Amino acid sequence: MALVVQKYGGTSVGTVERIRSVAERIARTFDDGNEVVVIVSAMSGETNRLVALANEVCEFPSEREYDVLVSTGEQVTIALLSMCLQSMGYQAKSYLGSQIPMITDSTHAKARIKSIQDKKIRADLAQETIVICAGFQGVEENGAITTLGRGGSDTSAVAIAAALKADVCEIYTDVDGVYTTDPRMVPEARKIEKISYEEMLEMASLGAKVLQIRSVEFAKKYGVVIHVRSSFDDSQGTLVTKEDEEMETVLVSGIAFNKDEAKISILGVPDQPGIAAQIFSPLTESNITVDMIIQNVSSEGKTDMTFTVPKTDSKMALQIIEPVAQAIGARGTSSDTAISKISIIGVGMRSHAGVASRMFESLSKEGINIEMISTSEIKISCVISDKYTELAVRVLHEAFGLNREE
Amino acid sequence: MALVVQKYGGTSVGTVERIRSVAERIARTFDDGNEVVVIVSAMSGETNRLVALANEVCEFPSEREYDVLVSTGEQVTIALLSMCLQSMGYQAKSYLGSQIPMITDSTHAKARIKSIQDKKIRADLAQETIVICAGFQGVEENGAITTLGRGGSDTSAVAIAAALKADVCEIYTDVDGVYTTDPRMVPEARKIEKISYEEMLEMASLGAKVLQIRSVEFAKKYGVVIHVRSSFDDSQGTLVTKEDEEMETVLVSGIAFNKDEAKISILGVPDQPGIAAQIFSPLTESNITVDMIIQNVSSEGKTDMTFTVPKTDSKMALQIIEPVAQAIGARGTSSDTAISKISIIGVGMRSHAGVASRMFESLSKEGINIEMISTSEIKISCVISDKYTELAVRVLHEAFGLNREE
Repeated sequence: MALVVQKYGGTSVGTVERIRSVAERIARTFDDGNEVVVIVSAMSGETNRLVALANEVCEFPSEREYDVLVSTGEQVTIALLSMCLQSMGYQAKSYLGSQIPMITDSTHAKARIKSIQDKKIRADLAQETIVICAGFQGVEENGAITTLGRGGSDTSAVAIAAALKADVCEIYTDVDGVYTTDPRMVPEARKIEKISYEEMLEMASLGAKVLQIRSVEFAKKYGVVIHVRSSFDDSQGTLVTKEDEEMETVLVSGIAFNKDEAKISILGVPDQPGIAAQIFSPLTESNITVDMIIQNVSSEGKTDMTFTVPKTDSKMALQIIEPVAQAIGARGTSSDTAISKISIIGVGMRSHAGVASRMFESLSKEGINIEMISTSEIKISCVISDKYTELAVRVLHEAFGLNREE
Repeated sequence: MALVVQKYGGTSVGTVERIRSVAERIARTFDDGNEVVVIVSAMSGETNRLVALANEVCEFPSEREYDVLVSTGEQVTIALLSMCLQSMGYQAKSYLGSQIPMITDSTHAKARIKSIQDKKIRADLAQETIVICAGFQGVEENGAITTLGRGGSDTSAVAIAAALKADVCEIYTDVDGVYTTDPRMVPEARKIEKISYEEMLEMASLGAKVLQIRSVEFAKKYGVVIHVRSSFDDSQGTLVTKEDEEMETVLVSGIAFNKDEAKISILGVPDQPGIAAQIFSPLTESNITVDMIIQNVSSEGKTDMTFTVPKTDSKMALQIIEPVAQAIGARGTSSDTAISKISIIGVGMRSHAGVASRMFESLSKEGINIEMISTSEIKISCVISDKYTELAVRVLHEAFGLNREE
């Protein structure tokens, strides 16, 4: 007997019919002899409906009341799903975030989980009851409803799995797992059977949208095994778990890409202490997230400084940077929005030499110029011209042996 | 400065536009120097939408989960109304039943209030905050959501007014007060300025649907002054309050009628101890509510027993009663669904003689035959043929001086 936590997103519970098919899957899991705790999101479309109501009332709704409003979304789902299981002859019981309770800090609309009490849920499980929890929502210590922010239901599920020391946290989505790269771009992409938290975090931060980053961080911290799988079939999905020897034998686990960044350069920057702070502090103050930062070796006391920012912020970043460049006596600035960042990710890199050079060679063979490089322990990223994105992903996918075997 | 509790029903908050106009009324009350606590229902139509969802899932939803589902209705309203007041520059804060908390027993879908904590609300009022509470819902001691049953928001409002010792509990509806009789039947009907709890209870139980009976009982028990008024204009409505001298000078306060009952007679019943129990026990067991019961003086050891039941239950009541009548040796049974019950209500009856005879004379003058009579301290009811309903109401309305002065 295992303790299984399952999480179903808005699309999986989007209609009464789908709620019924989710209930059937839950029932099968229970009938197989497992204890089952389920976390659900609002029915798809419901959150948007509620947000539209709020915006009809006023432009800037207070976050406290916003949370009161939108948290009704999951409340409807837990009630309907519990009813459905009961009508099928199972014992089921619903819990709001405030009833579990899942205690959070008081940052409305993007609260962070502080603690989860498992007593009531454990008592229900001991009575052979299926427990249905509202995702996305919690309660602060003084009793006000909080929400965890978009995609927070993943985090709810992992946190509850951690509190219960569940054997697995199954995250049901509309894809059947995590792939070596986007299958829409590379049809040969393979489903990954097992991936480490660290790799998953790199994949997620680079735009693979299967799992919320926060939920993976949570899973890593508490050692929760996540199983990403499809709510539309019974196939095995992808296990996200801690690194093991098997993973280390694989050089590269996946290829990620990101076309949402722009590159900004400041040319001929005097190489003096304190210059970097002068450049980046005003960007931080304007809430612009700087991703890669490259500074070349200085020649004749001057250096070029290049960094990337979200494309949507690039105009504002340039406006902020130009007077700074003038003030510090730089030669000028330049920017480029037609770029793309290609990354190879794999824990195997740690123990294998030559991964970077194989990446550079593969790109160079196709005549793709590398404009920026940055590396971490388990990731190498190259900025290239965005017109080569697809080519680069395909070439690297093949070069690192990720193509599906026929 | 007064502490004013206001309750707005589903129609009053049925659209964002109406919520805005409710917010303006609340703001005016606050600006007049009052402390304001508001109780709201779900937006009209919302509860029906939720119930339809539940019925789509299963035929007999569990009451616990039903309460989880339908209580989202008021939750949406309190959030929107609070946001609206905040956008107008007022401090407002919403409370769910579970947050106040309003503790109830655990009878889901028709829970009874056990206690209300006023600490948080009082603290908010002291901070010049307008408090917005979800009506209709409470929480049982173990934390599960409960609801008070249809029309429960009136009861919530009166109970909160009682807990806060509010100066008045204003119930906003789509009519502008309580009338001496149904104005659709008698255009001369007058709005009553002041009515006692007892009279209001009799009016309500006889079908005047302005206030829930439970809320009036609650108001009577705790001495809460209710002001029934229209949410569409600013006119003075009807005060429901404890009896005073002024009321006693009025002979009759209102005329009520009820066309929803049927009359059943058992003829030639042997006049022996235990017979009444034999007749009425099986009706009670079938959950049939018996209203009037008349037993005439016996002649030659036999008596006729007549009673009224809801029209919808009359067939079933007859089926139950016929074998009983046979078993106890009665002569037979008869029934009549074409009846109507006309009642005159007034605390003044207690100290005035001749009210009953004036009622009987007025009816007889019009050739209306009285089939049954029952009296209480402040009410006299007559069962007549239903074709005379309108005539009887008009005649009595005039006979007791209730017509509006020109």
